[in-house]
Amino acid sequence: MIELGENSYGKRAIRLVKVVREPGGHRVRDLTVDVALEGDFEAAHTTGDNALVVATDTMKNTVYALASEHLTGAIEAFGTILATHFLAFPQVRRATVALREHRWMPIGLAGGPAPDAFQRAGDATRTASVGATREATVVESGLADLVVMKTAKSAFAGFPRDRLTTLREAHDRIMATKVTATWRHAAPAADWDASHAALVATLLEVFAEHRSESVQHSIWAMGTAMLERHAEIDEVRMTLPNLHHWPVDLGPLGGENRDEIFVATLEPHGLIEATIRRATP
Amino acid sequence: MIELGENSYGKRAIRLVKVVREPGGHRVRDLTVDVALEGDFEAAHTTGDNALVVATDTMKNTVYALASEHLTGAIEAFGTILATHFLAFPQVRRATVALREHRWMPIGLAGGPAPDAFQRAGDATRTASVGATREATVVESGLADLVVMKTAKSAFAGFPRDRLTTLREAHDRIMATKVTATWRHAAPAADWDASHAALVATLLEVFAEHRSESVQHSIWAMGTAMLERHAEIDEVRMTLPNLHHWPVDLGPLGGENRDEIFVATLEPHGLIEATIRRATP
Amino acid sequence: MIELGENSYGKRAIRLVKVVREPGGHRVRDLTVDVALEGDFEAAHTTGDNALVVATDTMKNTVYALASEHLTGAIEAFGTILATHFLAFPQVRRATVALREHRWMPIGLAGGPAPDAFQRAGDATRTASVGATREATVVESGLADLVVMKTAKSAFAGFPRDRLTTLREAHDRIMATKVTATWRHAAPAADWDASHAALVATLLEVFAEHRSESVQHSIWAMGTAMLERHAEIDEVRMTLPNLHHWPVDLGPLGGENRDEIFVATLEPHGLIEATIRRATP
Amino acid sequence: MIELGENSYGKRAIRLVKVVREPGGHRVRDLTVDVALEGDFEAAHTTGDNALVVATDTMKNTVYALASEHLTGAIEAFGTILATHFLAFPQVRRATVALREHRWMPIGLAGGPAPDAFQRAGDATRTASVGATREATVVESGLADLVVMKTAKSAFAGFPRDRLTTLREAHDRIMATKVTATWRHAAPAADWDASHAALVATLLEVFAEHRSESVQHSIWAMGTAMLERHAEIDEVRMTLPNLHHWPVDLGPLGGENRDEIFVATLEPHGLIEATIRRATP
Repeated sequence: MIELGENSYGKRAIRLVKVVREPGGHRVRDLTVDVALEGDFEAAHTTGDNALVVATDTMKNTVYALASEHLTGAIEAFGTILATHFLAFPQVRRATVALREHRWMPIGLAGGPAPDAFQRAGDATRTASVGATREATVVESGLADLVVMKTAKSAFAGFPRDRLTTLREAHDRIMATKVTATWRHAAPAADWDASHAALVATLLEVFAEHRSESVQHSIWAMGTAMLERHAEIDEVRMTLPNLHHWPVDLGPLGGENRDEIFVATLEPHGLIEATIRRATP
Repeated sequence: MIELGENSYGKRAIRLVKVVREPGGHRVRDLTVDVALEGDFEAAHTTGDNALVVATDTMKNTVYALASEHLTGAIEAFGTILATHFLAFPQVRRATVALREHRWMPIGLAGGPAPDAFQRAGDATRTASVGATREATVVESGLADLVVMKTAKSAFAGFPRDRLTTLREAHDRIMATKVTATWRHAAPAADWDASHAALVATLLEVFAEHRSESVQHSIWAMGTAMLERHAEIDEVRMTLPNLHHWPVDLGPLGGENRDEIFVATLEPHGLIEATIRRATP
Repeated sequence: MIELGENSYGKRAIRLVKVVREPGGHRVRDLTVDVALEGDFEAAHTTGDNALVVATDTMKNTVYALASEHLTGAIEAFGTILATHFLAFPQVRRATVALREHRWMPIGLAGGPAPDAFQRAGDATRTASVGATREATVVESGLADLVVMKTAKSAFAGFPRDRLTTLREAHDRIMATKVTATWRHAAPAADWDASHAALVATLLEVFAEHRSESVQHSIWAMGTAMLERHAEIDEVRMTLPNLHHWPVDLGPLGGENRDEIFVATLEPHGLIEATIRRATP
Repeated sequence: MIELGENSYGKRAIRLVKVVREPGGHRVRDLTVDVALEGDFEAAHTTGDNALVVATDTMKNTVYALASEHLTGAIEAFGTILATHFLAFPQVRRATVALREHRWMPIGLAGGPAPDAFQRAGDATRTASVGATREATVVESGLADLVVMKTAKSAFAGFPRDRLTTLREAHDRIMATKVTATWRHAAPAADWDASHAALVATLLEVFAEHRSESVQHSIWAMGTAMLERHAEIDEVRMTLPNLHHWPVDLGPLGGENRDEIFVATLEPHGLIEATIRRATP
């Protein structure tokens, strides 16, 4: 006997730009939206019956159609409206909407910010994910592709050595990473934007000030601070690559490297993942 | 109270090329290896104590050091040796080794295949993942980035229509996808290479011959055939993007599109995921 | 005084798939086309007058519209028809059409090749570029992204050493590269496909068999053979990255590397470019 | 007779990070450097004689070795030192050094900028290229990957219409592009950093304020302003993709698009290139 296990389907990479034209100037919302549905889709697989299969093209249309009226606030709110919309189909048990917002900032001119001209504000993107069933809606906020570096207060030493270990202990190394972090809300935030800004500020502050013994140590420090200072969330997940910066040996070149010259590499790289959460009593 | 939840760490994108120099000619093994460990790493997070933290640099060294003696057969076997090696550290509870093999084939010359010159054989890569604990070792085989297309026997019709549905029913559409598939072995294969070749042949044959009502329908057809014909596996997972090919409307250009001219697009795209498995009685 | 210098404009990345449905089976043509025009476009720049500016959207439409009737043979021929079409605009002095063809091959089944199911045949793409003015049309053919490797008959030694030179002489190294090559036709080929196949065969044969002292040496060997054996071309250009494969030092790991274990790297990489041509007497 | 035409070789993607540790805080210099040499390298091609071939590995070493002492100011200055260094080899006729600087900014903390923690400041990179022969050194400055958008004052109308033209005239469209611009210095700048900042400010200001009839029109406006306001340069080159934002037709979805909802696309895209320069009298 063969059976269908976990399955989902949807539309990815729906690119949506909304221009909000206000008297004081324009604002640009630039989103990439993914929609995924789970539910009563067994017949589509086993017999090719599409009677219950909401077309992924319809998901795309829905994102554009609802943006006009409903993309007025944070992506967490828009995602909740989208997920709720898809739950109106009785065959849908769970709708998951993942959103990334690419930030644009007004071009700075001599007389102030331009009202209708913008530049992309870096690679770091704000993210949200809304997973909704008829029983519960879980909202996660986060960020992706935030590239950060510490040039002090970062060590990696005291690790075990076997015959295959050649890495030197480092008491003052560069630590660089591209942060992907998500945090789960215990309840909808009163102000998604303010909540997001405050969480990111905590994350960055601890990253900068923490005396790090390893990437793991930094994740714990950032995650616990985020939970301690922000009662609205109950779990933090982080995925941090270790983007190695190796000191260049200038000795053979007749020089000396006073902790100054590094080669940045991408392959291979460390990858550290952890979840930090409030313990259930 | 704040606690550490799930966590793992390791080294990604370890690039390893092994040249096997045999009398009849050379062979090239070209692998990308990822290693991840789970276990007793709480102190590293909470107190910055690295006494149990096997350095990811050591993981990289280990892959190179063991390749010399142990990369003699399939990546499933090499992965098993690597995972077992890392389990020798008592603090490691689970070691996961994921491997991708990039294929090279001898350059064809007038007199036969070149003995020592090669060309990359496409983007499709063979994959394996070995997850080992002291209780069990699970080996999955698979493939990634196999791009395939059907120009007949593919439909998508009979789906529900609401006011946001504009997609036309298609009784003869192009279906194109980039296959990522993995299958779990019930027990180690007698011959990993032969098993892999046979599974891929089944997958391709069903993809080509199946009369598809949707991507979901094709996944089910491929997965059930793989399970029915290959007793050594007990589960198949597939992730198939729908790489849309839209007919170009040539009417406004004074022409007629007789199901012949298409625009290939990447954004947005459908994404269909499912697991097919033997039911436990 | 400020003036407009060299300028061109056009449409890039026009993605075109044509399915040719013949009794014995289908064929897939999968092209990416770039169009660029030069000519009397000064007013568009200096005064914003678009009266002579053929819209890039029209270029895209043209590619699709002409594909129906005219994409029946080689991309060199289709490119020539497109370039000629754009020269019909009197303000166009030069039209350049660059085409890449992505190859699909029928899926192999037990009973022979599938008539209507295909898999992508590697990353290597056939290329062509047609540059047409009212005076002359120059057709170049080529290939891109052909990844090849030699595991023997490749050295790099005898190079000058200064105080910043640490590279060891290598008498038997791996040489790997991703070939981009173009060759210019002295006159239109009688059979573009046969000509292309023959040129690629020569390139691969010399790459495989040549005793290479450097990438430069290999470029010369390949280029001269292509010119000597194929009278229809008069110039070859090649751009070859040196995709370094460094031997791993297994000594500190208690092993010995018998020219067997390598790390493949992408950054940094060498880059060698040269033109080989028939001398004008 | 077959001869060697234009040729060059070098090292690409040399990744260099320098940490400058000053009492008031650290600074991060993050560069990607490409080196290319032209000169007396014919024998390397034709006979495999490497006696004059400076190893590309040595070029890499040179970049790291000289960074220690000489990467103290702008990349234009460091590039000039590197190019001059390579000209010391008598067989080198021209040395070209291209540099990209990836910007990091201190993480902002409550008490001010962090002294030793940084975040990547967007994708836009400052570029420089130094081309040196024994006769002359040409320094170009520039920027790459600056993504900008205008939501007003951008039109495209009045273009010619033929039977393959379906694009509507747009009197108020979104214009978005990823700017690659370079400008050539008539003489070394007194202050490379100040010069670069001023040029970028002019470019952005004109982009924002200009009433654009086309991308060509904007290039001309930006280029002429740069030349008119900055006497130190004598030529500007720009390459601007047109990153199309198409209005979504909400009519079939029961809505109306009041110039508000757009789909951002990457394929196909326009590409506009032009050189603006001081006319030689």
